[in-house]
Amino acid sequence: MARIVLYMSMSLDGFISGPDDDLDQPLGRDGQRLHHWLRDGGVDPESHRPSLEPSATVFDEMMATGAVIAGRRTFDLARGWNGDHHDGVPVFVPTHAAPDGAAPGHVRFVTDGIESCTAQARAAAGDRDVMLHGATTAQESLRRGLLDEMEIQLVPTLLGRGRRLFDHLRPEHIALKLIRVLQAPDVAHLRYRVLSAGG
Amino acid sequence: MARIVLYMSMSLDGFISGPDDDLDQPLGRDGQRLHHWLRDGGVDPESHRPSLEPSATVFDEMMATGAVIAGRRTFDLARGWNGDHHDGVPVFVPTHAAPDGAAPGHVRFVTDGIESCTAQARAAAGDRDVMLHGATTAQESLRRGLLDEMEIQLVPTLLGRGRRLFDHLRPEHIALKLIRVLQAPDVAHLRYRVLSAGG
Repeated sequence: MARIVLYMSMSLDGFISGPDDDLDQPLGRDGQRLHHWLRDGGVDPESHRPSLEPSATVFDEMMATGAVIAGRRTFDLARGWNGDHHDGVPVFVPTHAAPDGAAPGHVRFVTDGIESCTAQARAAAGDRDVMLHGATTAQESLRRGLLDEMEIQLVPTLLGRGRRLFDHLRPEHIALKLIRVLQAPDVAHLRYRVLSAGG
Repeated sequence: MARIVLYMSMSLDGFISGPDDDLDQPLGRDGQRLHHWLRDGGVDPESHRPSLEPSATVFDEMMATGAVIAGRRTFDLARGWNGDHHDGVPVFVPTHAAPDGAAPGHVRFVTDGIESCTAQARAAAGDRDVMLHGATTAQESLRRGLLDEMEIQLVPTLLGRGRRLFDHLRPEHIALKLIRVLQAPDVAHLRYRVLSAGG
């Protein structure tokens, strides 16, 4: 069955964006450095593929996922990737209220909760993994025990402020298993299995 | 010249202790798992040496430092290591007010500021590194640009709450260079050089 895998770039002090993130600076003030491990590309996802290993491998794994779950904020800030995150795989966006009009491209707004969203994404991905993206959606998934793995691109910077990836979790700890560590010059790729969540 | 190197075990969500840390549970509720990469030893520091590489190497590096700077809170919670952190090297404790009575063993309370404390520790360490320990002292050192390197033992757990290592920093980002990554079964050892601090 498809695994739900969180992919996020995070500063060593835990931020996934600087302050004042908006459409003009989706990663917030000073946050662009979180994506320095990627190539500075254009609209085509492949244009962002890092040229060096091991970052290229992690990027390829991300792009091999069979469905995407993207938080509404992430989705909006990324202008919905023009309706296609990669390769035309379905993009599920959990949200309280879908925007007016038809969903663009391969996007499907899901208004009946994160469990339903996760189930739909799993079914759509088949035997491939599901890429999950967005801090709020990651937090909700962790609280409800819906996340199987996390691939964190830990970026060597201290942003000092911004939006935290791990916030608003339950007070009970969540045990993880460190299953892979890859060192690139400008990032540590850390892969975790979620052993227990939310309980 | 001696480098000032922060050594801290931190959960993936950035905590160095759980809530309610006190003398009975110095790492707070649920926080003991942050030290699972160490052996569960006694008073002698060597009794905590991990049996497996690469954790043993990191432990040995820590124990090869020529002086210690320990935050007052850390110092108090650890009951001052009975006056000897390791090998009788001087332990400098920056504090607003030294406790009454003679400082125990190799401990020296420093009341004239973190810069003075750092300078004294550097001088005492000679050509060896200085180990710095404690979140508040780390934060103050980062704000003032006094930290040279950080060896973070990133523990695969999400504590959800507690005391954060990187908090109360300046809003300007601090650039780091990732200089070493070592994977152990239960911890990722990440070493950073501090490239710019507080500016």
